[in-house]
Amino acid sequence: MQKASLPKGTRDFSPDVLKRRNKIISVITKVYARYGFEPLQTPAVENLSTLTGKYGEEGDKLLFKILNSGNFLTDVKQEQLSEALENPNSLVPMIAGKGLRYDLTIPFARFVVQNRNDLQFPFKRYQIQPVWRADRPQKGRYREFWQCDADVIGTKSLLCEAEFIKVYHEVFTVLKLANYEIKINHRKILESIALTLEFDGNLTHLTVAIDKLDKIGWEGVRKELLSKGMRENQVSDLKELLIKSPLNSSVIDSLEHKLKPCEQTTEGINALREIISLLDSSQNTFNIQLDLSLARGLDYYTGCIFEATIHGASVGSVSGGGRYDDLTGVFGMPDVSGVGISFGLDRLYDVMQEAQLFSKSEGPTASMLLCHFDKITQKRCISIADSLRTNDISVEVYPDHKNLRKQLDYANKRGYSYVGVIGESELEDEVIQVKDMRSGEQKNMNLNTLTQLLK
Amino acid sequence: MQKASLPKGTRDFSPDVLKRRNKIISVITKVYARYGFEPLQTPAVENLSTLTGKYGEEGDKLLFKILNSGNFLTDVKQEQLSEALENPNSLVPMIAGKGLRYDLTIPFARFVVQNRNDLQFPFKRYQIQPVWRADRPQKGRYREFWQCDADVIGTKSLLCEAEFIKVYHEVFTVLKLANYEIKINHRKILESIALTLEFDGNLTHLTVAIDKLDKIGWEGVRKELLSKGMRENQVSDLKELLIKSPLNSSVIDSLEHKLKPCEQTTEGINALREIISLLDSSQNTFNIQLDLSLARGLDYYTGCIFEATIHGASVGSVSGGGRYDDLTGVFGMPDVSGVGISFGLDRLYDVMQEAQLFSKSEGPTASMLLCHFDKITQKRCISIADSLRTNDISVEVYPDHKNLRKQLDYANKRGYSYVGVIGESELEDEVIQVKDMRSGEQKNMNLNTLTQLLK
Repeated sequence: MQKASLPKGTRDFSPDVLKRRNKIISVITKVYARYGFEPLQTPAVENLSTLTGKYGEEGDKLLFKILNSGNFLTDVKQEQLSEALENPNSLVPMIAGKGLRYDLTIPFARFVVQNRNDLQFPFKRYQIQPVWRADRPQKGRYREFWQCDADVIGTKSLLCEAEFIKVYHEVFTVLKLANYEIKINHRKILESIALTLEFDGNLTHLTVAIDKLDKIGWEGVRKELLSKGMRENQVSDLKELLIKSPLNSSVIDSLEHKLKPCEQTTEGINALREIISLLDSSQNTFNIQLDLSLARGLDYYTGCIFEATIHGASVGSVSGGGRYDDLTGVFGMPDVSGVGISFGLDRLYDVMQEAQLFSKSEGPTASMLLCHFDKITQKRCISIADSLRTNDISVEVYPDHKNLRKQLDYANKRGYSYVGVIGESELEDEVIQVKDMRSGEQKNMNLNTLTQLLK
Repeated sequence: MQKASLPKGTRDFSPDVLKRRNKIISVITKVYARYGFEPLQTPAVENLSTLTGKYGEEGDKLLFKILNSGNFLTDVKQEQLSEALENPNSLVPMIAGKGLRYDLTIPFARFVVQNRNDLQFPFKRYQIQPVWRADRPQKGRYREFWQCDADVIGTKSLLCEAEFIKVYHEVFTVLKLANYEIKINHRKILESIALTLEFDGNLTHLTVAIDKLDKIGWEGVRKELLSKGMRENQVSDLKELLIKSPLNSSVIDSLEHKLKPCEQTTEGINALREIISLLDSSQNTFNIQLDLSLARGLDYYTGCIFEATIHGASVGSVSGGGRYDDLTGVFGMPDVSGVGISFGLDRLYDVMQEAQLFSKSEGPTASMLLCHFDKITQKRCISIADSLRTNDISVEVYPDHKNLRKQLDYANKRGYSYVGVIGESELEDEVIQVKDMRSGEQKNMNLNTLTQLLK
C-alpha cells in the first residue's frame, strides 16, 4: 500500500477553492474579451529547444524536462554516460527533448511565428493556463501555477499600453481590490539614466541592481552598483533620479529636465506623455505611479514596463508586463513589436483570501437535495429532479436508502440551503416538503411553486 | 535562429478552435452541474509512484516521466549507469520521481484518499483537464488531450448509473448528436458468461478478446480464445451468448434464462433491471444497447460498464466509464464503491467537425471595430469604446494610424459584422458611421442607438 501524496509545490483545487479561482478567471476573461482579445491555448509540453535560453541561465535551471519515451539511452554511449557523472547537464539534450512550459509568452511567440500566414495583425490574444517552474516552493510560490496573459503583437501603438492600464483598473475594481497600484517605467528612460550618469558599465547590471530596491534597500543597491564599477558620485546622482510619483504631465516635464537630452530620453518621455494623453478622456481615475526603480528582470522588454501591486497585501506584485520589440526574432520573425501583461492567478487568490473577499463557503453546486424514505418515494424524487433539471435547476437526489436523519446530516455538512423531503403523505398529496436549512422553517409546496422558488 | 515547432501529438488551439472546444466544455459542465457534481482540479504533475502500476504494463510505458531537477545523477553510481545501457528502465526510478497524469481517475482516487476526512460522501465531482500519453500519434489520437470526467464515490446506488445515462442523453442532445448510442454491460455478467461456459481460464483473457470484436471480427476473437485454452464448443456457445440488443426488460429476462444461475448472474441481472426501472419514469427515450461484447480494458471496473458512440462518426467511442468497487484501495482506503464516465473532448470535437455542426467561423470576440483617420478621431473612438465597454459590449479600437482602407481590410479579414468609422464630420455631428460589413449598408447613429444595436 502506498501513501497518497502530491509532489511538493503542487496542489489540488477542491470545489470551494476552484469555484473562487474560476470566478477570478471569469472576471479577467470578461475584461480581456471586452477589449477584443481572442482566446488561445498552447500545449503544456514544448520542445526544449523552444524554451531553453529564453529565461536566462537561472530560468534554464528551472525548466522541467521530460524524459524521452521508449529507450531513452538508445543514442548514448558509455563514455558520455561516464562524463555525465561529472556534468549531468551534458546528458540532458540526449535524453530529454521536451519540457513543460515556463511561461505563456514564449509559447505565444512560437505560435505567432508558426501561424504568421494565417493571423491578422495586430493580433490580440489572451491565454489562461498553468505554467511550471522547478523553483524552491515557499509561501505564495508554487511549482505549478496559473498565469492569465494578454498580449497585442504587430503594432507599436501606445493605445495598447493605455488599454492595459484600463484592463488593470477594471479587473481590480470588479475584484474589489480598489487599493491597487500600477507601477510604470520605460526601458528607454533606464537607458537614458545610464547615459545621464555617464555610467559606461553594463546596463543589465544597473537594472538588475535597482530592481532589488524593494528587497535589499538603498544600501544594498549601492553596494551592488559599486561592485559593478559605478562610482560613488554616480550612485548618489542615481538615487536622486529614481523618483517615484503619481504619473502626470508635470512629473514628466521635470524628469525631462533632469535627463541628458538624447534619443532615449525623447523616446521614453514621449511615450509616457502619450499614454497620459490617451487616458485623459476616461471617466476613471487610474492609480499609476511612475517608478523609475522598476526595471523587471526579463531582457526582452524594450519599451514600457508595468507592475501591479495591492496595498497592504503580503505578497509582492500580482501582475507584470511590458513592451518587447523583438520577441519573435529568435524564431525567425524579426521586428515585430508587442506588449503584454500577465496576472498571477495564485497571487490574486492569496491576496483576496487574505483580505477576506471570499464568502466563507461557496456552497454546493446544486440548489437542493431531495430526500426520501424508500424506493417509491425516491422514484418520486427522481421525477421531481427530472422536471427541475429541465428548468435548468441543479438538484441532487440522495442516492442511498438511508434514514432521513443521515440524509439531512449530509445536506447540512454540504451546506445546502434547501432540502426537499418526500414521504408517504407528500407522495399522496403531490407536494414537496421544503426545509429551509438555515431557519429550520418547512412548508409543503407543489412542483410549480418549488420551481419558481429555485429559479 | 531556430524553427518554431511543436512536439508531435501536441497542438495549439487557435481562437476559432478554442471557442468551439469551450462551447463543448460549457455544455458538459452545465449538465454535470445540473446533477449536483462539484468541480475539482488536480495538478498535471503527480508522483510517479501514484501513476505507476495503475494502467497495466502498456500504460506504464506510456507515462511521461519528468527528469528530477538539479543534479539528477547525484545518487547514481557508475555501475548503475552501465547497467542502464542494457536496461534503461532500471535508471528511471533514480532520475525521475514525477510524471504527467495519464487520466483523471487515478488522481481523483488519490485526492479522495488524501482528503477523506474533509469530504462528505457520496462525493460527486467533475474534472475537465488535459492528460498526457506517450502513444504513437495518429488521426484522432494525441499525446496531450482533454478528458471530461464525472464520478460519484461512496455509494453503491444504481441511481448513479441511471443518472449518467441521463447525463449522456442531455449532453448529446444539446450538442445535436442525437444519433448517439450508449452501450452498457456488467462485469458480473461477463463473469457469469465464463461460469456458464465452464471456461476455467483467466477471465481477463476472455474480456480482452471479446473487447476486440469490433476491430478483429469474430474470427479473430475465436482464434485468440482458442489460443488461450477455450474449446471450440465453448467459443460457439459464447458467440450465441454475446447478444446486442436495445436494453429492456424482456431482453434481460431472456438473458437470465441463458445464464447459469449463480451469484454473478443475479447481481448483474438485478443491476440492469434496476437501472431500467430507475429510468422508466423519464420523459426521454434513451438509446441504450445491451452489448455483452463490451468489456472495457481497465481492470478496476467491477460493475456496470458504459461506452458511448455516435452513429456514422469515423472515430470510435466518445465516452466510456463504469463502476469500480475498489479504486482507492491501493492508496489505503479500501471498499469504497464509485462509478464514473469520461468524455473525450478531442473526439467529440472531431465528430462534430466531421458532422459540420460548427459554424464556418466563430467570428471575432469583439462586436465592433472602431476606425479613424488621425489622433483626434482616434481619441473620439477611445471615448466611444469606453462607453460601450461600460455597457459590457466588447469593442476593438484600431491601434494604428493607417488609412481607412487598411483598417477596413483588417475588419474584413477578422470577420467583423460591424465597423464604426469616425471622421471629421462624424466628430462634428457627434455620430458614428456604422457599416454593416455583409450588406455594405452604412448609416450614422448616435452613441445611444449604437449601444442598443450592439447590446
